[in-house]
Amino acid sequence: MPRIKSQLDTLLAHINAPKDLKKLSKDQLAQVVRELREFIIDIVATKEGHLGASLGVVELTVALHYVFNTPTDKLIWDVGHQAYGHKILTGRKEIFGTNRQLNGISGFPKMGESEYDAFGTGHSSTSISAILGMALASKLKEEHQRQHIAVIGDASIASGMAFEGLNHAGVTDTNILIVLNDNAIGIDPSVGALKKYLTNVKKGTAKDENIFECLNFNYSGPMDGHDLNALIQELERLKSLPGPKLLHVITTKGRGLQKAEENQVTYHAPGKFDKKTGELLKKSDRPEPLKYQDVFGHTLVALANANERIVGITPAMPTGSSLKYMMEAIPDRAFDVGIAEQHAVTMAAGMAATGLIPFCNVYSTFLQRAYDQIIHDVALQNIPVVFCLDRAGLVGQDGPTHHGAFDIAYLRCIPNMVLCAPLNEVELRNIMYTAQLGLENPIAIRYPRGRGVLLDWERPFEEMEIGTALELKKGTNIAILSTGTIGNSIIQVLKEITNDQSVGHYHFPFIKPLDTKRIHQILKNYMHIITVEDGSAIGGFGSGILEVANDLGSPKEIKVFGIPDVFIPHGTQEELYQLAQIDIQSIRTYIERLL
Amino acid sequence: MPRIKSQLDTLLAHINAPKDLKKLSKDQLAQVVRELREFIIDIVATKEGHLGASLGVVELTVALHYVFNTPTDKLIWDVGHQAYGHKILTGRKEIFGTNRQLNGISGFPKMGESEYDAFGTGHSSTSISAILGMALASKLKEEHQRQHIAVIGDASIASGMAFEGLNHAGVTDTNILIVLNDNAIGIDPSVGALKKYLTNVKKGTAKDENIFECLNFNYSGPMDGHDLNALIQELERLKSLPGPKLLHVITTKGRGLQKAEENQVTYHAPGKFDKKTGELLKKSDRPEPLKYQDVFGHTLVALANANERIVGITPAMPTGSSLKYMMEAIPDRAFDVGIAEQHAVTMAAGMAATGLIPFCNVYSTFLQRAYDQIIHDVALQNIPVVFCLDRAGLVGQDGPTHHGAFDIAYLRCIPNMVLCAPLNEVELRNIMYTAQLGLENPIAIRYPRGRGVLLDWERPFEEMEIGTALELKKGTNIAILSTGTIGNSIIQVLKEITNDQSVGHYHFPFIKPLDTKRIHQILKNYMHIITVEDGSAIGGFGSGILEVANDLGSPKEIKVFGIPDVFIPHGTQEELYQLAQIDIQSIRTYIERLL
Repeated sequence: MPRIKSQLDTLLAHINAPKDLKKLSKDQLAQVVRELREFIIDIVATKEGHLGASLGVVELTVALHYVFNTPTDKLIWDVGHQAYGHKILTGRKEIFGTNRQLNGISGFPKMGESEYDAFGTGHSSTSISAILGMALASKLKEEHQRQHIAVIGDASIASGMAFEGLNHAGVTDTNILIVLNDNAIGIDPSVGALKKYLTNVKKGTAKDENIFECLNFNYSGPMDGHDLNALIQELERLKSLPGPKLLHVITTKGRGLQKAEENQVTYHAPGKFDKKTGELLKKSDRPEPLKYQDVFGHTLVALANANERIVGITPAMPTGSSLKYMMEAIPDRAFDVGIAEQHAVTMAAGMAATGLIPFCNVYSTFLQRAYDQIIHDVALQNIPVVFCLDRAGLVGQDGPTHHGAFDIAYLRCIPNMVLCAPLNEVELRNIMYTAQLGLENPIAIRYPRGRGVLLDWERPFEEMEIGTALELKKGTNIAILSTGTIGNSIIQVLKEITNDQSVGHYHFPFIKPLDTKRIHQILKNYMHIITVEDGSAIGGFGSGILEVANDLGSPKEIKVFGIPDVFIPHGTQEELYQLAQIDIQSIRTYIERLL
Repeated sequence: MPRIKSQLDTLLAHINAPKDLKKLSKDQLAQVVRELREFIIDIVATKEGHLGASLGVVELTVALHYVFNTPTDKLIWDVGHQAYGHKILTGRKEIFGTNRQLNGISGFPKMGESEYDAFGTGHSSTSISAILGMALASKLKEEHQRQHIAVIGDASIASGMAFEGLNHAGVTDTNILIVLNDNAIGIDPSVGALKKYLTNVKKGTAKDENIFECLNFNYSGPMDGHDLNALIQELERLKSLPGPKLLHVITTKGRGLQKAEENQVTYHAPGKFDKKTGELLKKSDRPEPLKYQDVFGHTLVALANANERIVGITPAMPTGSSLKYMMEAIPDRAFDVGIAEQHAVTMAAGMAATGLIPFCNVYSTFLQRAYDQIIHDVALQNIPVVFCLDRAGLVGQDGPTHHGAFDIAYLRCIPNMVLCAPLNEVELRNIMYTAQLGLENPIAIRYPRGRGVLLDWERPFEEMEIGTALELKKGTNIAILSTGTIGNSIIQVLKEITNDQSVGHYHFPFIKPLDTKRIHQILKNYMHIITVEDGSAIGGFGSGILEVANDLGSPKEIKVFGIPDVFIPHGTQEELYQLAQIDIQSIRTYIERLL
């Protein structure tokens, strides 16, 4: 593929909206495909972001905008990290370099950003329900010409929510087209019976009736998703067919960049790379603390080697959660169940009911998908499942769809739950160790995205006492009560305010049960109380401290640092902590004003 | 069917465990089937409970316990209200009359109640995940002889969670048997493409490959679920087959009681009836207030008649939510999407994104299934969906799986949400009216199970001011702040304490946004503050008042009446409110002590 010399010479330079595509010949469209792929590679190579998914759907993106009349026709991209080409073709080319930056465009479709983003996405498997809602609305409004398209991957369509959408859509006479983008991979390779079935369909070994036909869809495919002309032809044909339709296209994730095609997991979101060779740019050689996810991953292997009752479960996040280490080391006791958080949690409950100790690792934001299962199948029966909530707090560039802002509030109200937010890697390991010693309750352990704070994280395990808070620094006047890794910011602040002995610092690894004895002591001994957490201030840890103070008959004004009652946008984690005013500087300023 | 003269003469009288079944001849088993059916009818006729589902699976229940070696073999009943026969055969015959009563046995399988209840159920579609977890555990423990059976209805298997379980199970080599109990009805008739497909299978018009075979299950059926001998024979055959199996049995809900077969929706849980004729016993003729669900149902029709942008959505609860009135009156704008809460919510978001006003009615406890969709698809995009949460608070005999205890806590932390708990029927109507006038935020309206408090509920609509609390009674010393219909208990208490002018009562229809101005005033003017709600005290309305008082710099000891941090069991609503100490007497006693 020849590199484009100057953006000005390109066809892409002249495409500011899909209507500009419609003026082009088929040959020119093929050139747009090449340029679009190159444009994506150029930008993501330096600005970072999701790469493989968008490269895989470049032909599909061009074909959809060529054939359909967006934004009048509604187009929804499931999950949405594959929508870079869509964004570039729909007026956001010039600002695409701001992708995922604070105040820049979102890495996902976003309704407020463009009329071409018919529906915001981020979590998987929502597109069928949303597009069906729009199609039913069009029917009621007698807008019979309007087309409704959802593009969904094979990993996402296997999630229960997508099935619910298909099951309803199949008995409507709405004008919807589901494009199944089958690349056999989500972030990690797809799993499950449906994936196996789709493989059979591709090989031609599936039998007569197609599973989507069983659900009353007009099925078409499988076809090559990189054959632009064939795609255009088939989309034109489907456009004129009434009722629910499913087009099954086969694509290659990372298409057009050899390294990305060969290492699809790595190039899902590769960080900076050489745009010519695809070679990943080496990061600094300075020794850095491990990521929390890796501390989890390695620790689980160590614990599972010693305790054969331990099993590991991830809903489609072997790489993101680092459960992959256990999947490699002890494959028969580590399970990737696909994008199926609900199933993951209740399956864990089933396992724990028979005496196993499941470590069920789910991102904080995705555990929202299994909220009912946590309450109904785990906590109500008091089944000791160990939930490990990665990506708790503000996650950074993935933005509001992915922040883990609500878990403290939504878990704290559930009876029987233990809720723990360790301070650092050592405590994360110790609570994991403690959880498998015979804990009789379910426990949720939350920790953030990114790196820890220690280089020597692999210390001997120590059992933790459930419900006990720690005095990290004694003070006289101001008590800071923190939970989780944000406590390290407080340690930093207190280091900076070197000469002051009046500020005490208490770390609460346990948000539930709260250490009421310690709280009582603090309320008695200190004039000013400050709480700090990286979760929703409403209903969160600080709110829990207020409740306990109230129950103790010692109400006191408490300064609560937490995520305010708005959706925090995307940006670097540092920027977002500032924005939420739970960063070191904000806390330091507040304390200095008190002193 | 001849009536059994005396319980002592029956075979059933001698069956105290499944092993007693195994001694019987096929003819005797057939007699047990008849006796079991009669036993269920006899008890439910006077004690009330779920009838139709258990009558439909009597043969299946006998066959399963005859063929399999429970409780060593694991047997899970999905939803669980069809497990009466199972309970009676597994040692709970003598106490079956205590079914659903406080301190009596649960109306659903419950692990703590019997070793034969392998897993507690209540919400639908959990059984496949749970049984798969147990089967994987058996495999790891090398318990290769152990069998694992889940019985699931055709309405439940269409829910996304069940699909997730099937999708995973199909690629395992676990020894599991899914019995699909296909009676074409949940509480209301089943809907959706899968239901249509199953109908085709039954008619023989489906094509070659079965949808469950597509998912890699060994499929068998459809077969007559009332043919005991055939069932036993087929279960024996399947017992010896390795891998995941699905047996499709056709049953009739209500089987054996003519009226129950003819009116399956009514006889799902019919209340008291004549056990000979099936005739429902007439309730008192005294005029009673409507149920809140009916106020919702009729009001929605009235509003929808006047505003064509309104649509109604229920996930499988047309009767329970009373959306049936709109489904009858305006069928093309009222949607039963099946047991698919996740889909219901995101479909509503899709509709609202195009300008419709969806009233999405979901029981409080079931909305837990769609928690992520509320956050990610509705609130984050600030899409004005109107959620109507029926069965908020303590629901009574259905017990802890069905209480709506957590919605205030789990919704209050979500930005953009308006959360409203009306005092009575008039306010429920007025907030529904207000919600469709052009509200720009999503709103959740919670109201309880059961009857309202007014006979003249149908008053002219009045717009409510979002976020405004009301002074129902001025006082001087003690302020009671209540939210929702439990405020009527306070009105009652204040009536009983007739001579006291010191107690004020403030009703907060809006839990979010809270009326901070009013709270400020109350904090200033009263010595004692009491909050009252029928939701989790942790993270609830009282907690919100604590937060506001704290933010206002006016911390004050507040007595919070709410559901304590335990799972409340089953019993009458009255009994449970007492148990949770949020009943009239508990509140009255507290106030009198203060006076």
